[in-house]
Amino acid sequence: MHRKQVDPSTMEPDDIVASFTALKIPKTHAVVGLSNLIASNKQYRSLFVNRRLPDAGWSDVQIQHFIFLLSTLDTNNKTLVGSDSTSDESRWCGVGEREGRVYSSLVSQRHYGLSHGMGRSGDITEPQPKAVGSSVLVKLTLLMVLDAVRRGSGLNPKTAASHGILLPLCTGMSMSLVLSSLRTSAGDESRNIVLWSRIDQKSCFKAILSAGLKCVVIPTMRDGDQVVTDADALARALAEHKGRVLAVITTASCFAPRVPDKVDVVAKQCKEADVHHIINSAYGLQCAATSKLINRACVIGRVDAIVCSTDKNFLVPVGGAIVLSPDKDVIQNVGKMYAGRASSSPMVDLFITLLSMGLNGYTRLLTERSAMLETFPKRFEEVAIKYGERLLQCPANTISFGVTVDGLARLAGDDENETDYLNAVSADISKFGAMLFSRCVSGTRVVPRGGQKTISGHDFIGFGSSLDDYPHAYVTAACAIGVSKSEVDEFFVRLDKTFKEFKKASTK
Amino acid sequence: MHRKQVDPSTMEPDDIVASFTALKIPKTHAVVGLSNLIASNKQYRSLFVNRRLPDAGWSDVQIQHFIFLLSTLDTNNKTLVGSDSTSDESRWCGVGEREGRVYSSLVSQRHYGLSHGMGRSGDITEPQPKAVGSSVLVKLTLLMVLDAVRRGSGLNPKTAASHGILLPLCTGMSMSLVLSSLRTSAGDESRNIVLWSRIDQKSCFKAILSAGLKCVVIPTMRDGDQVVTDADALARALAEHKGRVLAVITTASCFAPRVPDKVDVVAKQCKEADVHHIINSAYGLQCAATSKLINRACVIGRVDAIVCSTDKNFLVPVGGAIVLSPDKDVIQNVGKMYAGRASSSPMVDLFITLLSMGLNGYTRLLTERSAMLETFPKRFEEVAIKYGERLLQCPANTISFGVTVDGLARLAGDDENETDYLNAVSADISKFGAMLFSRCVSGTRVVPRGGQKTISGHDFIGFGSSLDDYPHAYVTAACAIGVSKSEVDEFFVRLDKTFKEFKKASTK
Amino acid sequence: MHRKQVDPSTMEPDDIVASFTALKIPKTHAVVGLSNLIASNKQYRSLFVNRRLPDAGWSDVQIQHFIFLLSTLDTNNKTLVGSDSTSDESRWCGVGEREGRVYSSLVSQRHYGLSHGMGRSGDITEPQPKAVGSSVLVKLTLLMVLDAVRRGSGLNPKTAASHGILLPLCTGMSMSLVLSSLRTSAGDESRNIVLWSRIDQKSCFKAILSAGLKCVVIPTMRDGDQVVTDADALARALAEHKGRVLAVITTASCFAPRVPDKVDVVAKQCKEADVHHIINSAYGLQCAATSKLINRACVIGRVDAIVCSTDKNFLVPVGGAIVLSPDKDVIQNVGKMYAGRASSSPMVDLFITLLSMGLNGYTRLLTERSAMLETFPKRFEEVAIKYGERLLQCPANTISFGVTVDGLARLAGDDENETDYLNAVSADISKFGAMLFSRCVSGTRVVPRGGQKTISGHDFIGFGSSLDDYPHAYVTAACAIGVSKSEVDEFFVRLDKTFKEFKKASTK
Amino acid sequence: MHRKQVDPSTMEPDDIVASFTALKIPKTHAVVGLSNLIASNKQYRSLFVNRRLPDAGWSDVQIQHFIFLLSTLDTNNKTLVGSDSTSDESRWCGVGEREGRVYSSLVSQRHYGLSHGMGRSGDITEPQPKAVGSSVLVKLTLLMVLDAVRRGSGLNPKTAASHGILLPLCTGMSMSLVLSSLRTSAGDESRNIVLWSRIDQKSCFKAILSAGLKCVVIPTMRDGDQVVTDADALARALAEHKGRVLAVITTASCFAPRVPDKVDVVAKQCKEADVHHIINSAYGLQCAATSKLINRACVIGRVDAIVCSTDKNFLVPVGGAIVLSPDKDVIQNVGKMYAGRASSSPMVDLFITLLSMGLNGYTRLLTERSAMLETFPKRFEEVAIKYGERLLQCPANTISFGVTVDGLARLAGDDENETDYLNAVSADISKFGAMLFSRCVSGTRVVPRGGQKTISGHDFIGFGSSLDDYPHAYVTAACAIGVSKSEVDEFFVRLDKTFKEFKKASTK
Repeated sequence: MHRKQVDPSTMEPDDIVASFTALKIPKTHAVVGLSNLIASNKQYRSLFVNRRLPDAGWSDVQIQHFIFLLSTLDTNNKTLVGSDSTSDESRWCGVGEREGRVYSSLVSQRHYGLSHGMGRSGDITEPQPKAVGSSVLVKLTLLMVLDAVRRGSGLNPKTAASHGILLPLCTGMSMSLVLSSLRTSAGDESRNIVLWSRIDQKSCFKAILSAGLKCVVIPTMRDGDQVVTDADALARALAEHKGRVLAVITTASCFAPRVPDKVDVVAKQCKEADVHHIINSAYGLQCAATSKLINRACVIGRVDAIVCSTDKNFLVPVGGAIVLSPDKDVIQNVGKMYAGRASSSPMVDLFITLLSMGLNGYTRLLTERSAMLETFPKRFEEVAIKYGERLLQCPANTISFGVTVDGLARLAGDDENETDYLNAVSADISKFGAMLFSRCVSGTRVVPRGGQKTISGHDFIGFGSSLDDYPHAYVTAACAIGVSKSEVDEFFVRLDKTFKEFKKASTK
Repeated sequence: MHRKQVDPSTMEPDDIVASFTALKIPKTHAVVGLSNLIASNKQYRSLFVNRRLPDAGWSDVQIQHFIFLLSTLDTNNKTLVGSDSTSDESRWCGVGEREGRVYSSLVSQRHYGLSHGMGRSGDITEPQPKAVGSSVLVKLTLLMVLDAVRRGSGLNPKTAASHGILLPLCTGMSMSLVLSSLRTSAGDESRNIVLWSRIDQKSCFKAILSAGLKCVVIPTMRDGDQVVTDADALARALAEHKGRVLAVITTASCFAPRVPDKVDVVAKQCKEADVHHIINSAYGLQCAATSKLINRACVIGRVDAIVCSTDKNFLVPVGGAIVLSPDKDVIQNVGKMYAGRASSSPMVDLFITLLSMGLNGYTRLLTERSAMLETFPKRFEEVAIKYGERLLQCPANTISFGVTVDGLARLAGDDENETDYLNAVSADISKFGAMLFSRCVSGTRVVPRGGQKTISGHDFIGFGSSLDDYPHAYVTAACAIGVSKSEVDEFFVRLDKTFKEFKKASTK
Repeated sequence: MHRKQVDPSTMEPDDIVASFTALKIPKTHAVVGLSNLIASNKQYRSLFVNRRLPDAGWSDVQIQHFIFLLSTLDTNNKTLVGSDSTSDESRWCGVGEREGRVYSSLVSQRHYGLSHGMGRSGDITEPQPKAVGSSVLVKLTLLMVLDAVRRGSGLNPKTAASHGILLPLCTGMSMSLVLSSLRTSAGDESRNIVLWSRIDQKSCFKAILSAGLKCVVIPTMRDGDQVVTDADALARALAEHKGRVLAVITTASCFAPRVPDKVDVVAKQCKEADVHHIINSAYGLQCAATSKLINRACVIGRVDAIVCSTDKNFLVPVGGAIVLSPDKDVIQNVGKMYAGRASSSPMVDLFITLLSMGLNGYTRLLTERSAMLETFPKRFEEVAIKYGERLLQCPANTISFGVTVDGLARLAGDDENETDYLNAVSADISKFGAMLFSRCVSGTRVVPRGGQKTISGHDFIGFGSSLDDYPHAYVTAACAIGVSKSEVDEFFVRLDKTFKEFKKASTK
Repeated sequence: MHRKQVDPSTMEPDDIVASFTALKIPKTHAVVGLSNLIASNKQYRSLFVNRRLPDAGWSDVQIQHFIFLLSTLDTNNKTLVGSDSTSDESRWCGVGEREGRVYSSLVSQRHYGLSHGMGRSGDITEPQPKAVGSSVLVKLTLLMVLDAVRRGSGLNPKTAASHGILLPLCTGMSMSLVLSSLRTSAGDESRNIVLWSRIDQKSCFKAILSAGLKCVVIPTMRDGDQVVTDADALARALAEHKGRVLAVITTASCFAPRVPDKVDVVAKQCKEADVHHIINSAYGLQCAATSKLINRACVIGRVDAIVCSTDKNFLVPVGGAIVLSPDKDVIQNVGKMYAGRASSSPMVDLFITLLSMGLNGYTRLLTERSAMLETFPKRFEEVAIKYGERLLQCPANTISFGVTVDGLARLAGDDENETDYLNAVSADISKFGAMLFSRCVSGTRVVPRGGQKTISGHDFIGFGSSLDDYPHAYVTAACAIGVSKSEVDEFFVRLDKTFKEFKKASTK
């Protein structure tokens, strides 16, 4: 093989083989190793060129090799300890107020030497000249997430998942940032009201207040066992607060018996009323039905942003959110609204995870959840029936399921005076949850009738069920992405035991 | 030694020795190892009991041993891959929508198995029942930071550093959160103006807008070479916007020739005007003079919050801030304002780093910076004088220093028409910065005369110097915590070369 | 619960809960975390008390927590970089010639701070006073391996697996060490011959020479397709070299068509001849039939040592061996023969792996292999038949399988002159192996007829088949522990393609 | 920039920049990062091309990036858990009996995915076709060690350090392997005696026996305080055992009052007698004087091999040795004698450490030791004199130092009957060592008069001092590579205290 003049700055496969000969590694061996390196390089290059989630996952060796490549591109990774004396760690000398110095080598290790984080003071998506490796990592992560959301979750690449941004914030704070950014772009101070289809969860409600906006809670209504969007109530509110509404917030993933909002209907209403529409879909990416609903909403109505959790959808530690939008400007304004740089640690987690999964791995997880779903509610019901309870019929919620625990509640309560009864029951039935937890079952929610909670001055009656007067006490459980068969099996065994034990204890 | 009935749930040193005997480890050996374990346990216990930064740093083995102890306390750490089949990884079965599942073992590893993050939906400081280890880690980190800030940086434990909160946000977003929380507590919608003593840095300005507030920029003034607070202008603004001012923001760490604001004077003004006062002290903790100034401000006037970066002060990767306050309520309200859970990764970095440093290590870093400071400006000046420039006399800024580059600017410019001159120079002199960067010098800032920048609609004249008409072009460099002697030496060598080369190139 | 006076040296669960209260962690949360810690502590204690492989595997968090606990017990773990100035890393001062100092923190990290290794100058199993944690780790690893070998692999705990030692050496060097130790204990210099039932693999043969002994190769014989032990030839050799034979070496795991030696028959012969008998069972632990055979040999005859690889049986990186023996003295003498300390890195790998597997995980791997075995030979045969070849009938070998490639060999060869034919074929048929390798199939062996190899002066005719004149060229493949279904599926696809391609290329 | 046709198999810097543009990373940013990558690539390439220890150490990011590059070249790195289902981990399917499968991801991580180890069944230095990355790593490590030993330690690259081999064995076992290999090459069975200049350390003595050879101990003699080689005794032994001596073993690093053997004199004797000469220089590489002595020996006489520990000289965990020789054949034969593959973990440690140190770092360590040496003996003497003891005058030993403890011994002993006295004293004076250890001083050796030890049947009188009747009890301490100033300071403080306390306790 005739070789061009060797460029000392490159480490090409051919050069590597040549070097090996000098090390007395037989050429045949070198060629085998080379074929691996070439295969890996092709995958790396393909990621750069196609900027999509690879179909097959990468090995941990490849992932780390690639991250250290990116880390080499950053200029401001310095481990402090010993850097002065023991190694010529850096060609760089830094005389700014922050030069990516890291004191502990343990800390440096857990970040692969990356210390810059993401973004710049003006925009969290802006690349940083000192840290091009970090910048690339964050950009690739976003592109892979978008691909996962399109090819895996089924969101429409032309509408719902057309544009996106990753934020190192929880969904609540991300919601807050989106609202701030919409308000700023609107440039109309009088639009300071957010209409929020009630969902009994603190973060979103607080996010609205945190953005300096007013929240008007749109009550839900009951449809059989399901707690659903009250589109008429929303229409009334839109009319009432005409000209002062900044946005409507709906929810696409929630605990039973609340079901996902009719986001298509609301999207249409928002379009007509010319107000923003944000969908809180914290863990909705795992559900094809939800994706379809959102896709439809984008077509027939208005959707400005869809806020999703990275940890709930992609099995990484808590810490990030993805905001999707059909509108590029919305996304860009959100990026500019985050004032400063941020930890890229949640992005590194996502980057590793997506490369490790590949599209195949992600799809497999979605498929496994679907398979589990086929028996989950039925098995839940079987346990319930054994103790005189029943499954709440909420077909529109394909993630969270509930069974009544009215019988248990009645056991401990006192029927004569309903208020007293509710208080007594509320205390007692919560023991059922504690008993499950003490049996190492986490994630269930026991909701009594008539609970109440005041959040930042607003009273929520019947707190937990997202409805003032839901007629059942119930316990919920979710069949979420990543749950294993053995966990589910074990859950039903323990639930059964807990029912039995609770009954026994209460009838004494 | 008579032993009490052995409790199978404990792993006490005595029990361990007894077990070793069964392994035919001589008792004398076991006792030596035991003395190490006891010494470590004492340190762990001391951290729990005293809740202070240890004087001497811990070894990496101890730090990791302790983090894994905490990780064991979390119930929701699950690595997904293989969990079903290959190990009985968890006694827990999780049927919530998020159960701390982590797909990649690489990701799990870099978080020591911790996946919960910090906080709960209602409050970022709230402990999480499923993740008591994570909760404890975050609390201990805060307590150690407070101790470092008090015993190391010299902030008054009774006033400035009386209370604190760690946020996994940059200083800008933290500022925004503090403002939101003050507005909410104030409960007075008409107070929507923030007075901001001009400092040419994007984050803080954007943070004010991001919180949905209006920013009134208070111009600075020149005092010799120094750019200083214009207290009179502030007084006028306070009078003009009376009743509508939510807060005044000052800055305690900044680039020369801007010097720290007269925070004590402003504090007094705020007290009198009954408005909030927030100090942006992003990297001020490394400077004893700044701490004294802030302490004084707390005594003679009003300070509601001091916002500091964790990475700039404690040599961890980007991602966190600490907000300090003399007022417990201010801190609590900030915690409640963060709507949801967050990544605890920046806290883990800080936890490791503080334990690794100990108070001794932190103090040593501060002392080393002070020692470097003794010669830094003089050496900077020496290079400048060689090329006909001079050091800007800004004694009130002990972190950032500047030398004029007027001569360089003139070389390339055209004197006849000043506007043209400035434009030409601005373009040319920025090359000086690029040349330094291409010589692997990072962190300098070259500021031409008469720059201009529009941020979110506001025009900043003379951008960079925080003053409309600063009479010099200049270059700044910082003598910041963690900078090494060899870096500084190298910087002056390269600066000298760059001056020479620039002159040569320009006079051609 | 009344508590005894708190001992500051312990970190008991109760104390931890008490400490948490001071951190304002609700007691209920603390109690949940506590239950996890107690559960972990019980597992740790159980390992100390029962000294057996746990049934269920531990989580990675537990494993690391436990290793760092052990690491804390070592006195001589010092990371060099920065230890002087940045942390009070050690209470210890070391003034010996080796004090466990480690220069690189990366290196220290990969060993969990452990740097002592295993053993002392006189005995590799001897505990080291400075490093009780390392000593315990090695001892526990041995005990878990013994348990795995007994309860998992089915070796008799009273005989074959009665005693054992772990060596950080490959099986060849371990064999050498065993031979040296037997010679030393024998104390009879004239016994310097080892009889070795031929197996075409270099290590064992060289191991005999390396120990300074003479090797007499006992030829094998053919039984159908199988290459088997020639017990008569062995009997003749025992008679011929009477009084000068130190040991007989047999092999219990090997490549088809060689099958495991009749170790029971040989054991009986050795007993009668009063010579040592060592079984080379490098990867035999995965096979229940092999265990049964060895158990029987121990009962009806003499077995002094069984040498097994750790990596081939337990899926760890290369580097260790386990020597088993019914005789405690044999094991102790081997330990004393290793002159000095050794790396404990292979033991750390094994320790982690066994704890991660648990007995359940190990048993599952064995079962999965058995399941794969049901179809492996049949599918191998199917491909062979397609191309006019056939499966070699070697039922006594349940790990390695072979199919003839005589047809392929003939294609390229020249029948007229057999020697020429063989040479030609040998060259050509090896291309078949190379083609498989270039299709990323590793581990197959293509053995032509009439190969020949000289090792340390000894000529092996028909090298590869362990027989002078095996009548077939063939290719082997193994169904070994840890092989995945997808690998096997893919293997047969690629094998098929390679057959086709080879035929096509040869008939041109 | 016009680009040649892009080759999809490469990842050249130019291609990377091009890819970044597509990610909307400004070209100027990319170029900066690129300059870092190019700088790193140059260093990698330089290592391949020059095959020498780099002058400046590499950063941890670079080291890991490079190891993962090598790891990518191995074909047989497979993590078992989840490999089947969750990622397309490998293009390879393995149907051998060992395919580098690794069960635990923790284990895989600590080896950077490398699982092959080093060597092949016939030779530990032989490259392995399946694992070219591992093979290259081991070769580069050897070349860097040779360079360190030449340019750092000062061994002559033409003679003493002309050839070398790395063994994953302790020095004792390496000595044994060297002896076996010399015996095999000699091919003369009657040469089975090794003459060994007495040094009271178990490993070397046992190593000789382990190789199946006979050891004749050549007594040392006293020269002032020093215990030195008795060249006459050696000459007599050479004469006595003429024709039966395989090798003479000398020692170049040892505990005071023993000083390094006169290896030059012995080398001359060996040359004349035509017998092999092996130098045991376990920790001699840190000492320039020792290197000079060995260089001289190679010139004026015969040296066949020099055996050095990797951990004692290069601050890595226990586990490796380097054998140096002027003779290529000697080294090659040693490689062939190791029968099988071995763990490459000790080589990985060394690889990381040498790259992290660079020549500059290694030289700095040697210089720091030399600096420490200037005051070490004087300070040791000062403490001794305070308690009526004195420094043993052993100028030829520049690593280990001793002070008498005769006074302490006398305190506790009984003069009347010397045997009784010695027994009593031996017991008592050892308490002095125990007291030091309990004060966390490790590495000292307290040697009483008249100790005795039987090792494998040989009686060593006066064990510890390498002389039958050394006239002093004494305590030794070493000033070895890597010792820190604070350790040494602390040692003298604690030694002083221990002297005082021992006297006090004994005079009661």
